[in-house]
Amino acid sequence: MQLYSYFRSSAAYRVRIALNLKGLPYDTRPVHLLKDGGQHFLPDYTRLNPLALIPTLVDGPAVLTQSLAIIEYLEETHPIPPLLPATPIARARVRALALSIACDIHPLNNLRVLRYLKRELDIPDEARDTWYRHWIQTGLLALEKMLAASPETGTYCHGGTPSLADICLVPQLFNARRLKCDLDAMPTLVRIDAACRALPAFEHAAPENQPDAE
Amino acid sequence: MQLYSYFRSSAAYRVRIALNLKGLPYDTRPVHLLKDGGQHFLPDYTRLNPLALIPTLVDGPAVLTQSLAIIEYLEETHPIPPLLPATPIARARVRALALSIACDIHPLNNLRVLRYLKRELDIPDEARDTWYRHWIQTGLLALEKMLAASPETGTYCHGGTPSLADICLVPQLFNARRLKCDLDAMPTLVRIDAACRALPAFEHAAPENQPDAE
Repeated sequence: MQLYSYFRSSAAYRVRIALNLKGLPYDTRPVHLLKDGGQHFLPDYTRLNPLALIPTLVDGPAVLTQSLAIIEYLEETHPIPPLLPATPIARARVRALALSIACDIHPLNNLRVLRYLKRELDIPDEARDTWYRHWIQTGLLALEKMLAASPETGTYCHGGTPSLADICLVPQLFNARRLKCDLDAMPTLVRIDAACRALPAFEHAAPENQPDAE
Repeated sequence: MQLYSYFRSSAAYRVRIALNLKGLPYDTRPVHLLKDGGQHFLPDYTRLNPLALIPTLVDGPAVLTQSLAIIEYLEETHPIPPLLPATPIARARVRALALSIACDIHPLNNLRVLRYLKRELDIPDEARDTWYRHWIQTGLLALEKMLAASPETGTYCHGGTPSLADICLVPQLFNARRLKCDLDAMPTLVRIDAACRALPAFEHAAPENQPDAE
């Protein structure tokens, strides 16, 4: 498999964790989001992925886009170890936790959105950073409440093994720390994040351990 | 089942379509996003859904949040008729189409985001509408390319039966029309949207046909 990746992309980071947890080897094809006006806009890449977004995973004839769709594909084609629990209610819980990051936090803080705020709306850097932190704080505080209140929460977001929810959580906390968000009110998230990052699958997927890291 | 819904919420609209396609009866519990400072922020609702977002589906003991997680749950608990195709590659395609709307378009145009632009960043209404249209156009044009280029596209986004992708497409086009986005460059999306809206399951889920419609 070939993963078109950028070391700091949250969405690519998620897929790297999933591939590592499944024990699936892959080649990294770096796509630099800042060089050449954004290498994800170059025709060679948009032919593969018309959305011009990272990541893309190529698995033989399959060209897969959207990190959560890719991870569900890996789950279906390589079910062991599972990244989703067994029952529909538990699976819905894990997917909801994952989507609350992938839909409600991350899209608002994407590079392209921050650029639009700066270039088209002339928002000063400080207000842009406040925007960034606002959506992370709002989303992570809600997530903290959901996790802290639930007996299903264990060492990880759902019980004693890492799941799709943890795969989304760790890259989001990496971003939060990078932008110096205050995580004091999120002890459950911080605890789970530390437990995940102690696992080799998460560590090897970290931005600083990628071939294209700067 | 009880669906906490707002007639104009895209995410609630998706779940309504899925429930109708599956033939599952449900009671609508209206949550008005504008009245009482936002009824989704009232304690009775946030106890149910700490994310303070619409929709929530209650199915016996299960309290389900996040529209796509809810629809995957319905797919697992009521598999007929299927909303995802049979093979992992095809399922990944449908999920990617759905996520390209649910992650890359819709979150940027949510009520809470438009409010932040106005109240916190003092963006004039005209620039806010341009923002809205920019993300819809960017996302829908990419989706048009993906659909127009693929032999898998049929009457609907994937072949001859409606899927999770169509369930996300129709509410997004409803929003696009509401904000007077130009859809001339998206003939495939417009064609599929019309085919979907001709089906009773989609029609009954439309905002104007909800008990809380204004």
